[in-house]
Amino acid sequence: MPSSPIRKLVPFAEAAIKRGIKVYHLNIGQPDIESPECALKAVKENTMSLVAYPNSGGNESYRKGLAEYYRNININVDFTDIIITTGGSEALQLALGVTCDPGDEVIIMEPFYTNYNSFSLQNDVKLVPITTHIENGFALPSVEEFEKKITPRTRGILLCNPGNPTGVLYTREAIQQLGALAKKHGLYIYSDEVYREFCYTDEPHYSCMHLEGLEDNVILIDSVSKRYSLCGVRIGAIVSRNKAVMGAVMKFAQARLCSPQYGQIAGEAALKTPQSYFDKVRQEYMHRRDVLVSELQKMDGVICPNPMGAFYAVVQLPIDNADKFAQWLLEEFSYEGQTVMVAPAAGFYATPNTGLNQVRFAYVLKEEDLRNAMKCLAEALKVYPGRTK
Amino acid sequence: MPSSPIRKLVPFAEAAIKRGIKVYHLNIGQPDIESPECALKAVKENTMSLVAYPNSGGNESYRKGLAEYYRNININVDFTDIIITTGGSEALQLALGVTCDPGDEVIIMEPFYTNYNSFSLQNDVKLVPITTHIENGFALPSVEEFEKKITPRTRGILLCNPGNPTGVLYTREAIQQLGALAKKHGLYIYSDEVYREFCYTDEPHYSCMHLEGLEDNVILIDSVSKRYSLCGVRIGAIVSRNKAVMGAVMKFAQARLCSPQYGQIAGEAALKTPQSYFDKVRQEYMHRRDVLVSELQKMDGVICPNPMGAFYAVVQLPIDNADKFAQWLLEEFSYEGQTVMVAPAAGFYATPNTGLNQVRFAYVLKEEDLRNAMKCLAEALKVYPGRTK
Repeated sequence: MPSSPIRKLVPFAEAAIKRGIKVYHLNIGQPDIESPECALKAVKENTMSLVAYPNSGGNESYRKGLAEYYRNININVDFTDIIITTGGSEALQLALGVTCDPGDEVIIMEPFYTNYNSFSLQNDVKLVPITTHIENGFALPSVEEFEKKITPRTRGILLCNPGNPTGVLYTREAIQQLGALAKKHGLYIYSDEVYREFCYTDEPHYSCMHLEGLEDNVILIDSVSKRYSLCGVRIGAIVSRNKAVMGAVMKFAQARLCSPQYGQIAGEAALKTPQSYFDKVRQEYMHRRDVLVSELQKMDGVICPNPMGAFYAVVQLPIDNADKFAQWLLEEFSYEGQTVMVAPAAGFYATPNTGLNQVRFAYVLKEEDLRNAMKCLAEALKVYPGRTK
Repeated sequence: MPSSPIRKLVPFAEAAIKRGIKVYHLNIGQPDIESPECALKAVKENTMSLVAYPNSGGNESYRKGLAEYYRNININVDFTDIIITTGGSEALQLALGVTCDPGDEVIIMEPFYTNYNSFSLQNDVKLVPITTHIENGFALPSVEEFEKKITPRTRGILLCNPGNPTGVLYTREAIQQLGALAKKHGLYIYSDEVYREFCYTDEPHYSCMHLEGLEDNVILIDSVSKRYSLCGVRIGAIVSRNKAVMGAVMKFAQARLCSPQYGQIAGEAALKTPQSYFDKVRQEYMHRRDVLVSELQKMDGVICPNPMGAFYAVVQLPIDNADKFAQWLLEEFSYEGQTVMVAPAAGFYATPNTGLNQVRFAYVLKEEDLRNAMKCLAEALKVYPGRTK
């Protein structure tokens, strides 16, 4: 498994900090938003005297509460269609594990979340990328492009909507087009929707679970990590109306015994999070995005689509190579004692030598820090020796 | 993946309970002992306002505390030799994943913990069983028996010591013999020692990590589940002085991001559990074991070795078939409105048609319930239609 390009930068960031430089971390998706009080409180006030194994599929009260959460967003599922997992990571591992044989293929839009590589590798599944393009905002590829990639080994299509790393939000029409394709070719749709609450259009999020007639095809990957800023509790879910898939998932779920009990308590309590929490968080991220995008668009030679979801943007810079640039930012550059850490985007592409002049920004910093980071970046682009235009 | 024989019995147990029968659950290893107060308290008193991702390898303070725990039992490791995992289950999945290629073989003593099958299956690893025998207390097989099973695909030997399901505790000499064998053939030893605190001899537990010259061979699988009755927190550890192995484990650990934060808080605080807790727990289990074994030995035709560790015993009964017997106990039998649920042992053997008249008991009930359960069993054996002698 290749090292993540971000991890390779960590020692350079540590060295910069040691030299007294303030580093703005735009490289990781760790939100700085507080977790909902109700979730934290439920854990603090638990009265367990023995932290026993919960049910392998998850606590029934939590699964029932989660089914209600889904029904409120027009995803009509029963609690038996839901298995609680140890983060969204485990949900995807299980989804691939029960639907694919070694050597099977799954089509994916690149750039994509790097860890998908590991989950496929663990299941001996081959990810087949279709490149999406910054020029059209990383829009969903055409049916023809998908069909060129479909082989007898293709088991499904994996998407992240809203998307990490691009922030792309697929429209209802795009998802319906994808659904028709999956139906026609008998493919699974593995739909990672962990950023569902982070959509910046006026329409509600259109989920693959909303597709009619695709009940046996769609497998939803979900997580409380981003929705409630509860990354550390390790609670996700796998949701599908395909009974055979869920039966197989349950067998593997039984083998690893259960998901963490404290996290399930937090997750279940978080279902009572008031709408005001989400409104405030959404407003905060939209504002941050607006700051980021408007600052980037002021910089000559920078291409930045307006991301409509999640809290990421993939941006093209007027530079020779983003790996070199990211390292240079940490090793050689500073502006008023400050610099920026960014994630080179090439690591999010499976196709070699793609996205070499792109970086991913996670806009998880408060406005002031974000403005300072953008100021640093603007100054850096003025003096970077590998500037291209 | 085959269904566990215990899971097949669950509907029969539920039906018996619905008919008003009291069922004594000797079938599962869920301890009834309370978790240490210090662990529960640390979680209740946590002051996090945001449950962020901990480090992928585990919180450094916890890893350092755990290194000290190991040094106190003469396992000399540095905190960098330890990666915190999501239960012992994940530790073993990772250990097999990083050391085996698909199709590789791992030798294992049967009967063994059923879920090992799933972890091997997930890694396309073939478990090669060596049958151990109730007549000699499920002692470690001879070097010759191991050598008969070694092929060019053999990567290692997996053991559970003290053992689930048999309660066998391997002696220092047996472990040293195993170490010499692993050294000679260049094999890994995957040593599941999650029941380390449950040893009922006067000698301290002899760990595979105590073997000298085997630093690169031994991979320790550990967990807080049984030690502190914290099954539900999902915290374990993988420990090895083999730097290449630990480097590879860390890459997979990074892919799944982290282990649960609340569980790590509980696990770290549990390191301060007073010795009096362990003394009391050990005394309680030894007493339960004594009750179980002495009651079983009073029954004609029952063979029950004296288990020296964990809280299980595999016992041979004068019956035709333990699957049938277990189902009959729940479906057709009751004594004074009570019956017993047992785990048929055949599910713990990989070799077909082995251990058919054996059952596993988990002595996780308090004395009174255990005595009632044994009374039921004695009466059941008197009237069971499939009794053999």
